Amino acid sequence: MLERLQSFEGNTPDVEAAAIVGVDGLTIAASFPLGVEEERVSAMSASMMNIGKRISSELARGMLDEVYIQGDDGYILLMSMGNEALLSVLARQQAKLGILFLEMRKAINDLRDLVRI
Amino acid sequence: MLERLQSFEGNTPDVEAAAIVGVDGLTIAASFPLGVEEERVSAMSASMMNIGKRISSELARGMLDEVYIQGDDGYILLMSMGNEALLSVLARQQAKLGILFLEMRKAINDLRDLVRI
Repeated sequence: MLERLQSFEGNTPDVEAAAIVGVDGLTIAASFPLGVEEERVSAMSASMMNIGKRISSELARGMLDEVYIQGDDGYILLMSMGNEALLSVLARQQAKLGILFLEMRKAINDLRDLVRI
Repeated sequence: MLERLQSFEGNTPDVEAAAIVGVDGLTIAASFPLGVEEERVSAMSASMMNIGKRISSELARGMLDEVYIQGDDGYILLMSMGNEALLSVLARQQAKLGILFLEMRKAINDLRDLVRI
């Protein structure tokens, strides 16, 4: 699983970190740079996804698939991996979002079998 | 302010609703369809933005500008209007995101003066 995450990072320039996080906020697998507190990031990613799910169903946007957060120094992208887990990715500001989403979807297709959901 | 919101909605096809929400979760101005509970939407938009801000600063993405939530039936787009307010937009699934973000930025430029931030 970690191998697939690392190959995703290798394939997509401007990705700084990637993690698979359970909906409970615990890290399942992570490839994070030094200085990032893995536990807090995972917990926050899961919170964000949960609030996103509530707001999405409240507003009749259907089941939540993706959350994207843009700060002025870069992006955080969350993509649902079914009911149990999500893929959380940090990218630099110059990242090409279209390519990134495409690569995330490919990675999720491969990873989904590994987390068995 | 409501006029500018409505003209934004008129200019951008596939926008279903738009609101200006204070960071405290209270609606400042809204153009919502029937059946949507304005208060809850505003409160949730503000929560989402607040968690987005925390995660963005935690992960060194800088100041938060935009949050985008994609469900399988459409989008929710949140865009910061400074420290005091945000623009929250509901769009249908077929919306063109690039155009939508552009129109949101234009509307924010006009609206910013009106909320005086």
